[in-house]
Amino acid sequence: MLSYPWTALVTVAALILYFVVTLNVGRARFKYNVSPPAISGNPDFERVFRVQQNTVEQIVLFIPALWVFSLFVSQIWGAALGAVWVIGRILFAWGYYQAPEKRAAGFGISSLVTIALLLGSLIGVGLTLYQTF
Amino acid sequence: MLSYPWTALVTVAALILYFVVTLNVGRARFKYNVSPPAISGNPDFERVFRVQQNTVEQIVLFIPALWVFSLFVSQIWGAALGAVWVIGRILFAWGYYQAPEKRAAGFGISSLVTIALLLGSLIGVGLTLYQTF
Amino acid sequence: MLSYPWTALVTVAALILYFVVTLNVGRARFKYNVSPPAISGNPDFERVFRVQQNTVEQIVLFIPALWVFSLFVSQIWGAALGAVWVIGRILFAWGYYQAPEKRAAGFGISSLVTIALLLGSLIGVGLTLYQTF
Repeated sequence: MLSYPWTALVTVAALILYFVVTLNVGRARFKYNVSPPAISGNPDFERVFRVQQNTVEQIVLFIPALWVFSLFVSQIWGAALGAVWVIGRILFAWGYYQAPEKRAAGFGISSLVTIALLLGSLIGVGLTLYQTF
Repeated sequence: MLSYPWTALVTVAALILYFVVTLNVGRARFKYNVSPPAISGNPDFERVFRVQQNTVEQIVLFIPALWVFSLFVSQIWGAALGAVWVIGRILFAWGYYQAPEKRAAGFGISSLVTIALLLGSLIGVGLTLYQTF
Repeated sequence: MLSYPWTALVTVAALILYFVVTLNVGRARFKYNVSPPAISGNPDFERVFRVQQNTVEQIVLFIPALWVFSLFVSQIWGAALGAVWVIGRILFAWGYYQAPEKRAAGFGISSLVTIALLLGSLIGVGLTLYQTF
Protein backbone atom coordinates (compact mmCIF):
# COMPACT_ATOMS: atom_id res chain seq x y z
CA MET A 1 0.00 0.00 0.00
CA LEU A 2 1.02 3.56 -0.66
CA SER A 3 1.50 4.94 2.84
CA TYR A 4 2.19 8.63 3.12
CA PRO A 5 0.14 9.53 6.19
CA TRP A 6 1.79 12.93 6.84
CA THR A 7 1.29 13.97 3.23
CA ALA A 8 -2.30 12.74 3.46
CA LEU A 9 -2.87 14.67 6.70
CA VAL A 10 -1.72 17.95 5.12
CA THR A 11 -3.88 17.18 2.07
CA VAL A 12 -6.95 16.74 4.28
CA ALA A 13 -6.12 19.97 6.16
CA ALA A 14 -5.88 21.86 2.85
CA LEU A 15 -9.17 20.33 1.66
CA ILE A 16 -10.96 21.29 4.91
CA LEU A 17 -9.70 24.90 4.56
CA TYR A 18 -10.95 24.91 0.97
CA PHE A 19 -14.30 23.46 2.07
CA VAL A 20 -14.70 26.26 4.64
CA VAL A 21 -13.93 29.09 2.18
CA THR A 22 -16.43 27.48 -0.22
CA LEU A 23 -19.12 27.39 2.50
CA ASN A 24 -18.36 31.06 3.14
CA VAL A 25 -19.37 31.90 -0.45
CA GLY A 26 -22.80 30.35 0.12
CA ARG A 27 -23.18 32.30 3.37
CA ALA A 28 -22.05 35.52 1.65
CA ARG A 29 -24.61 34.98 -1.16
CA PHE A 30 -27.30 34.94 1.53
CA LYS A 31 -25.87 37.76 3.64
CA TYR A 32 -25.27 40.17 0.74
CA ASN A 33 -28.28 38.95 -1.25
CA VAL A 34 -26.40 37.90 -4.42
CA SER A 35 -28.46 35.13 -6.07
CA PRO A 36 -26.91 32.57 -8.45
CA PRO A 37 -25.82 32.73 -11.22
CA ALA A 38 -24.71 36.31 -10.39
CA ILE A 39 -21.13 36.51 -9.12
CA SER A 40 -20.66 40.27 -8.89
CA GLY A 41 -22.39 43.52 -7.94
CA ASN A 42 -21.42 43.72 -4.25
CA PRO A 43 -17.75 44.32 -3.30
CA ASP A 44 -18.12 42.47 0.04
CA PHE A 45 -19.45 39.40 -1.75
CA GLU A 46 -16.79 39.70 -4.45
CA ARG A 47 -13.97 39.50 -1.88
CA VAL A 48 -15.42 36.32 -0.35
CA PHE A 49 -15.89 34.89 -3.85
CA ARG A 50 -12.34 35.83 -4.91
CA VAL A 51 -10.89 34.10 -1.81
CA GLN A 52 -12.56 30.89 -2.87
CA GLN A 53 -11.63 31.30 -6.55
CA ASN A 54 -8.04 31.99 -5.63
CA THR A 55 -7.98 29.01 -3.29
CA VAL A 56 -9.18 26.74 -6.14
CA GLU A 57 -6.51 28.17 -8.41
CA GLN A 58 -3.78 27.53 -5.84
CA ILE A 59 -4.91 24.15 -4.45
CA VAL A 60 -4.91 22.73 -7.98
CA LEU A 61 -1.18 23.48 -8.06
CA PHE A 62 -0.45 22.65 -4.43
CA ILE A 63 -1.84 19.11 -4.06
CA PRO A 64 -0.07 17.52 -7.06
CA ALA A 65 3.20 19.35 -6.20
CA LEU A 66 2.91 18.20 -2.55
CA TRP A 67 2.52 14.56 -3.61
CA VAL A 68 5.27 14.55 -6.25
CA PHE A 69 7.60 16.19 -3.72
CA SER A 70 6.62 13.67 -1.02
CA LEU A 71 7.10 10.71 -3.38
CA PHE A 72 10.39 11.83 -4.98
CA VAL A 73 12.07 14.01 -2.35
CA SER A 74 10.83 13.57 1.24
CA GLN A 75 7.50 12.91 2.92
CA ILE A 76 8.45 14.78 6.11
CA TRP A 77 9.76 17.87 4.33
CA GLY A 78 6.81 17.79 1.96
CA ALA A 79 4.35 17.67 4.86
CA ALA A 80 6.21 20.40 6.79
CA LEU A 81 6.22 22.73 3.76
CA GLY A 82 2.59 21.82 3.11
CA ALA A 83 1.63 22.78 6.68
CA VAL A 84 3.18 26.21 6.08
CA TRP A 85 1.16 26.50 2.86
CA VAL A 86 -2.07 25.80 4.77
CA ILE A 87 -1.20 28.45 7.40
CA GLY A 88 -0.37 30.96 4.63
CA ARG A 89 -3.70 30.29 2.94
CA ILE A 90 -5.58 30.81 6.23
CA LEU A 91 -3.83 34.20 6.63
CA PHE A 92 -4.63 35.02 3.00
CA ALA A 93 -8.34 34.19 3.33
CA TRP A 94 -9.05 35.97 6.60
CA GLY A 95 -6.91 38.93 5.51
CA TYR A 96 -8.74 39.28 2.16
CA TYR A 97 -12.11 39.02 3.96
CA GLN A 98 -11.13 42.25 5.74
CA ALA A 99 -9.55 44.16 2.83
CA PRO A 100 -7.86 43.35 -0.52
CA GLU A 101 -4.51 44.75 0.65
CA LYS A 102 -4.45 42.40 3.68
CA ARG A 103 -4.17 39.33 1.46
CA ALA A 104 -0.51 39.92 0.56
CA ALA A 105 1.39 38.29 3.46
CA GLY A 106 -0.44 34.96 3.39
CA PHE A 107 -0.35 34.91 -0.39
CA GLY A 108 3.42 35.44 -0.35
CA ILE A 109 4.07 32.69 2.21
CA SER A 110 2.03 30.12 0.29
CA SER A 111 3.53 31.14 -3.04
CA LEU A 112 7.06 30.61 -1.70
CA VAL A 113 6.04 27.13 -0.48
CA THR A 114 4.55 26.32 -3.89
CA ILE A 115 7.78 27.40 -5.63
CA ALA A 116 9.85 25.28 -3.20
CA LEU A 117 7.61 22.23 -3.79
CA LEU A 118 7.75 22.67 -7.57
CA LEU A 119 11.53 23.16 -7.75
CA GLY A 120 12.13 20.33 -5.26
CA SER A 121 9.86 18.04 -7.30
CA LEU A 122 11.67 18.90 -10.51
CA ILE A 123 15.06 18.12 -8.92
CA GLY A 124 13.80 14.94 -7.19
CA VAL A 125 12.17 13.55 -10.33
CA GLY A 126 15.19 14.57 -12.45
CA LEU A 127 17.61 12.75 -10.10
CA THR A 128 15.38 9.64 -10.10
CA LEU A 129 15.38 9.56 -13.91
CA TYR A 130 19.15 10.25 -14.01
CA GLN A 131 19.83 7.32 -11.65
CA THR A 132 17.75 5.03 -13.88
CA PHE A 133 20.29 5.36 -16.72
CA MET B 1 1.78 -1.35 -8.28
CA LEU B 2 -0.88 0.84 -6.72
CA SER B 3 -4.08 -0.99 -7.62
CA TYR B 4 -7.30 0.75 -6.73
CA PRO B 5 -9.46 -0.05 -9.77
CA TRP B 6 -12.82 0.84 -8.17
CA THR B 7 -11.49 4.20 -6.99
CA ALA B 8 -10.02 4.73 -10.45
CA LEU B 9 -13.34 3.83 -12.11
CA VAL B 10 -15.23 6.42 -10.05
CA THR B 11 -12.50 8.95 -10.80
CA VAL B 12 -12.89 8.38 -14.55
CA ALA B 13 -16.71 8.64 -14.24
CA ALA B 14 -16.35 11.98 -12.42
CA LEU B 15 -13.88 13.22 -15.05
CA ILE B 16 -16.21 12.23 -17.92
CA LEU B 17 -19.10 14.11 -16.23
CA TYR B 18 -16.83 17.11 -15.87
CA PHE B 19 -15.73 16.83 -19.50
CA VAL B 20 -19.38 16.85 -20.63
CA VAL B 21 -20.34 19.94 -18.59
CA THR B 22 -17.24 21.67 -20.01
CA LEU B 23 -18.27 20.79 -23.59
CA ASN B 24 -21.72 22.21 -22.76
CA VAL B 25 -20.13 25.62 -22.07
CA GLY B 26 -18.64 25.67 -25.57
CA ARG B 27 -22.01 24.71 -27.08
CA ALA B 28 -23.80 27.36 -24.97
CA ARG B 29 -21.29 30.03 -26.15
CA PHE B 30 -22.35 29.20 -29.71
CA LYS B 31 -26.08 28.80 -29.01
CA TYR B 32 -26.43 32.03 -26.98
CA ASN B 33 -23.79 33.91 -29.00
CA VAL B 34 -21.45 34.76 -26.07
CA SER B 35 -17.92 35.09 -27.53
CA PRO B 36 -14.77 34.62 -25.42
CA PRO B 37 -13.50 36.22 -23.27
CA ALA B 38 -17.01 37.34 -22.20
CA ILE B 39 -18.55 35.14 -19.50
CA SER B 40 -21.74 37.02 -18.76
CA GLY B 41 -24.62 38.97 -20.34
CA ASN B 42 -27.05 36.11 -21.02
CA PRO B 43 -28.72 34.32 -18.05
CA ASP B 44 -29.10 31.02 -19.98
CA PHE B 45 -25.39 31.01 -20.78
CA GLU B 46 -24.54 32.00 -17.21
CA ARG B 47 -26.32 28.95 -15.77
CA VAL B 48 -24.42 26.58 -18.07
CA PHE B 49 -21.18 28.37 -17.17
CA ARG B 50 -21.94 28.25 -13.44
CA VAL B 51 -22.57 24.48 -13.63
CA GLN B 52 -19.10 24.00 -15.03
CA GLN B 53 -17.48 26.45 -12.61
CA ASN B 54 -19.18 24.78 -9.67
CA THR B 55 -18.16 21.34 -10.94
CA VAL B 56 -14.50 22.49 -11.07
CA GLU B 57 -14.79 23.86 -7.55
CA GLN B 58 -16.23 20.58 -6.24
CA ILE B 59 -14.14 18.06 -8.23
CA VAL B 60 -10.96 19.70 -6.90
CA LEU B 61 -12.15 18.71 -3.42
CA PHE B 62 -13.71 15.39 -4.38
CA ILE B 63 -10.86 13.59 -6.19
CA PRO B 64 -8.16 14.05 -3.50
CA ALA B 65 -10.68 13.23 -0.71
CA LEU B 66 -11.81 10.10 -2.63
CA TRP B 67 -8.23 8.85 -2.94
CA VAL B 68 -7.17 9.62 0.64
CA PHE B 69 -10.34 7.87 1.87
CA SER B 70 -9.70 4.88 -0.43
CA LEU B 71 -6.06 4.59 0.67
CA PHE B 72 -6.59 5.06 4.42
CA VAL B 73 -10.16 3.83 5.07
CA SER B 74 -11.66 1.55 2.42
CA GLN B 75 -11.53 1.32 -1.38
CA ILE B 76 -15.02 -0.21 -1.66
CA TRP B 77 -16.69 2.35 0.61
CA GLY B 78 -14.76 5.14 -1.06
CA ALA B 79 -15.90 4.02 -4.51
CA ALA B 80 -19.52 3.53 -3.34
CA LEU B 81 -19.63 7.03 -1.81
CA GLY B 82 -17.91 8.38 -4.90
CA ALA B 83 -20.57 6.85 -7.17
CA VAL B 84 -23.24 8.67 -5.14
CA TRP B 85 -21.26 11.90 -5.57
CA VAL B 86 -21.25 11.46 -9.37
CA ILE B 87 -25.03 10.83 -9.39
CA GLY B 88 -25.59 13.91 -7.21
CA ARG B 89 -23.50 16.04 -9.57
CA ILE B 90 -25.49 14.80 -12.59
CA LEU B 91 -28.74 15.81 -10.82
CA PHE B 92 -27.16 19.16 -9.92
CA ALA B 93 -26.05 19.92 -13.49
CA TRP B 94 -29.24 18.97 -15.31
CA GLY B 95 -31.33 20.64 -12.59
CA TYR B 96 -29.38 23.90 -12.81
CA TYR B 97 -29.61 23.83 -16.62
CA GLN B 98 -33.40 24.12 -16.13
CA ALA B 99 -33.52 26.64 -13.27
CA PRO B 100 -31.23 27.85 -10.44
CA GLU B 101 -33.58 26.51 -7.73
CA LYS B 102 -33.48 22.97 -9.22
CA ARG B 103 -29.80 22.59 -8.40
CA ALA B 104 -30.36 22.12 -4.64
CA ALA B 105 -31.08 18.36 -4.33
CA GLY B 106 -28.06 17.19 -6.32
CA PHE B 107 -25.85 19.76 -4.65
CA GLY B 108 -26.94 18.55 -1.21
CA ILE B 109 -26.33 14.86 -2.00
CA SER B 110 -22.82 15.51 -3.33
CA SER B 111 -21.98 17.84 -0.46
CA LEU B 112 -22.92 15.19 2.11
CA VAL B 113 -20.68 12.68 0.29
CA THR B 114 -17.82 15.18 0.29
CA ILE B 115 -18.21 15.76 4.05
CA ALA B 116 -18.28 11.98 4.66
CA LEU B 117 -15.13 11.48 2.56
CA LEU B 118 -13.33 14.34 4.33
CA LEU B 119 -14.25 13.25 7.87
CA GLY B 120 -13.53 9.59 7.06
CA SER B 121 -10.14 10.58 5.59
CA LEU B 122 -9.29 12.61 8.68
CA ILE B 123 -10.16 9.67 10.99
CA GLY B 124 -8.40 7.09 8.78
CA VAL B 125 -5.21 9.12 8.48
CA GLY B 126 -5.32 10.00 12.19
CA LEU B 127 -5.63 6.33 13.19
CA THR B 128 -2.77 5.37 10.84
CA LEU B 129 -0.51 7.98 12.43
CA TYR B 130 -1.65 6.97 15.94
CA GLN B 131 -0.76 3.31 15.25
CA THR B 132 2.70 4.36 14.02
CA PHE B 133 3.62 5.51 17.53
CA MET C 1 7.29 3.09 -3.35
CA LEU C 2 5.09 4.28 -6.18
CA SER C 3 7.62 5.08 -8.90
CA TYR C 4 6.28 6.76 -11.99
CA PRO C 5 9.04 9.29 -12.74
CA TRP C 6 7.99 10.04 -16.34
CA THR C 7 4.40 10.67 -15.28
CA ALA C 8 5.72 12.82 -12.43
CA LEU C 9 7.97 14.77 -14.82
CA VAL C 10 5.04 15.61 -17.11
CA THR C 11 2.97 16.56 -14.05
CA VAL C 12 5.66 18.99 -12.91
CA ALA C 13 5.92 20.45 -16.45
CA ALA C 14 2.15 21.01 -16.52
CA LEU C 15 2.24 22.61 -13.05
CA ILE C 16 5.09 24.96 -14.06
CA LEU C 17 3.12 26.05 -17.16
CA TYR C 18 0.12 26.65 -14.94
CA PHE C 19 2.24 28.60 -12.46
CA VAL C 20 3.52 30.86 -15.26
CA VAL C 21 0.04 31.64 -16.66
CA THR C 22 -1.06 32.43 -13.08
CA LEU C 23 1.89 34.82 -12.61
CA ASN C 24 0.87 36.45 -15.90
CA VAL C 25 -2.53 37.37 -14.39
CA GLY C 26 -0.81 39.25 -11.57
CA ARG C 27 1.40 41.07 -14.08
CA ALA C 28 -1.62 41.89 -16.28
CA ARG C 29 -3.50 43.29 -13.25
CA PHE C 30 -0.60 45.70 -12.78
CA LYS C 31 -0.05 46.48 -16.47
CA TYR C 32 -3.73 47.11 -17.28
CA ASN C 33 -4.51 48.58 -13.87
CA VAL C 34 -7.27 46.12 -12.90
CA SER C 35 -7.32 45.93 -9.08
CA PRO C 36 -8.71 42.93 -7.16
CA PRO C 37 -11.44 41.86 -6.76
CA ALA C 38 -12.34 43.16 -10.26
CA ILE C 39 -11.86 40.57 -13.02
CA SER C 40 -13.26 42.44 -15.99
CA GLY C 41 -13.40 45.84 -17.71
CA ASN C 42 -10.32 45.59 -19.94
CA PRO C 43 -10.31 43.10 -22.87
CA ASP C 44 -6.51 42.68 -22.76
CA PHE C 45 -6.67 41.73 -19.09
CA GLU C 46 -9.67 39.48 -19.70
CA ARG C 47 -7.76 37.39 -22.26
CA VAL C 48 -4.87 36.83 -19.82
CA PHE C 49 -7.39 35.98 -17.09
CA ARG C 50 -9.32 33.58 -19.35
CA VAL C 51 -6.08 31.73 -20.26
CA GLN C 52 -5.48 31.06 -16.59
CA GLN C 53 -9.11 30.15 -15.87
CA ASN C 54 -9.18 27.79 -18.83
CA THR C 55 -5.88 26.24 -17.74
CA VAL C 56 -7.35 25.55 -14.27
CA GLU C 57 -10.42 24.01 -15.85
CA GLN C 58 -8.30 21.72 -18.06
CA ILE C 59 -5.51 20.79 -15.61
CA VAL C 60 -8.14 19.56 -13.13
CA LEU C 61 -9.14 17.01 -15.77
CA PHE C 62 -5.67 16.34 -17.14
CA ILE C 63 -3.69 15.40 -14.01
CA PRO C 64 -6.05 12.71 -12.66
CA ALA C 65 -6.57 11.28 -16.19
CA LEU C 66 -2.78 11.22 -16.74
CA TRP C 67 -2.21 9.27 -13.52
CA VAL C 68 -5.06 6.78 -13.99
CA PHE C 69 -3.84 6.16 -17.55
CA SER C 70 -0.23 5.75 -16.34
CA LEU C 71 -1.26 3.35 -13.56
CA PHE C 72 -3.71 1.23 -15.56
CA VAL C 73 -2.49 1.46 -19.18
CA SER C 74 1.13 2.57 -19.66
CA GLN C 75 3.47 5.04 -17.98
CA ILE C 76 5.45 5.73 -21.18
CA TRP C 77 2.38 6.31 -23.36
CA GLY C 78 0.78 8.36 -20.61
CA ALA C 79 3.86 10.57 -20.31
CA ALA C 80 4.18 10.92 -24.12
CA LEU C 81 0.54 11.95 -24.48
CA GLY C 82 0.95 14.24 -21.48
CA ALA C 83 3.94 15.97 -23.08
CA VAL C 84 1.78 16.69 -26.15
CA TRP C 85 -0.90 18.13 -23.83
CA VAL C 86 1.65 20.51 -22.28
CA ILE C 87 2.81 21.67 -25.74
CA GLY C 88 -0.82 22.18 -26.82
CA ARG C 89 -1.52 24.26 -23.71
CA ILE C 90 1.56 26.44 -24.38
CA LEU C 91 0.30 27.08 -27.94
CA PHE C 92 -3.18 27.80 -26.53
CA ALA C 93 -1.93 30.31 -23.94
CA TRP C 94 0.43 32.29 -26.16
CA GLY C 95 -2.11 32.22 -29.01
CA TYR C 96 -4.92 33.52 -26.80
CA TYR C 97 -2.63 36.25 -25.42
CA GLN C 98 -2.48 37.59 -29.00
CA ALA C 99 -6.11 37.13 -30.04
CA PRO C 100 -9.11 34.94 -29.03
CA GLU C 101 -9.18 33.20 -32.44
CA LYS C 102 -5.54 32.09 -32.11
CA ARG C 103 -6.36 29.81 -29.17
CA ALA C 104 -8.04 27.14 -31.32
CA ALA C 105 -5.10 24.97 -32.48
CA GLY C 106 -3.53 24.47 -29.07
CA PHE C 107 -6.93 23.95 -27.49
CA GLY C 108 -7.75 21.26 -30.06
CA ILE C 109 -4.46 19.38 -29.58
CA SER C 110 -4.81 19.29 -25.79
CA SER C 111 -8.48 18.33 -25.97
CA LEU C 112 -7.67 15.34 -28.19
CA VAL C 113 -5.01 14.24 -25.68
CA THR C 114 -7.50 14.58 -22.82
CA ILE C 115 -10.05 12.45 -24.70
CA ALA C 116 -7.38 9.81 -25.42
CA LEU C 117 -6.30 9.72 -21.75
CA LEU C 118 -9.91 9.46 -20.56
CA LEU C 119 -10.93 6.70 -23.01
CA GLY C 120 -7.66 4.82 -22.42
CA SER C 121 -8.19 5.07 -18.65
CA LEU C 122 -11.74 3.77 -18.95
CA ILE C 123 -10.58 0.77 -21.02
CA GLY C 124 -7.54 0.09 -18.80
CA VAL C 125 -9.54 0.23 -15.57
CA GLY C 126 -12.36 -1.80 -17.13
CA LEU C 127 -9.96 -4.57 -18.22
CA THR C 128 -8.31 -4.62 -14.78
CA LEU C 129 -11.72 -5.08 -13.12
CA TYR C 130 -12.73 -7.70 -15.72
CA GLN C 131 -9.57 -9.73 -15.03
CA THR C 132 -10.30 -9.63 -11.28
CA PHE C 133 -13.42 -11.77 -11.81
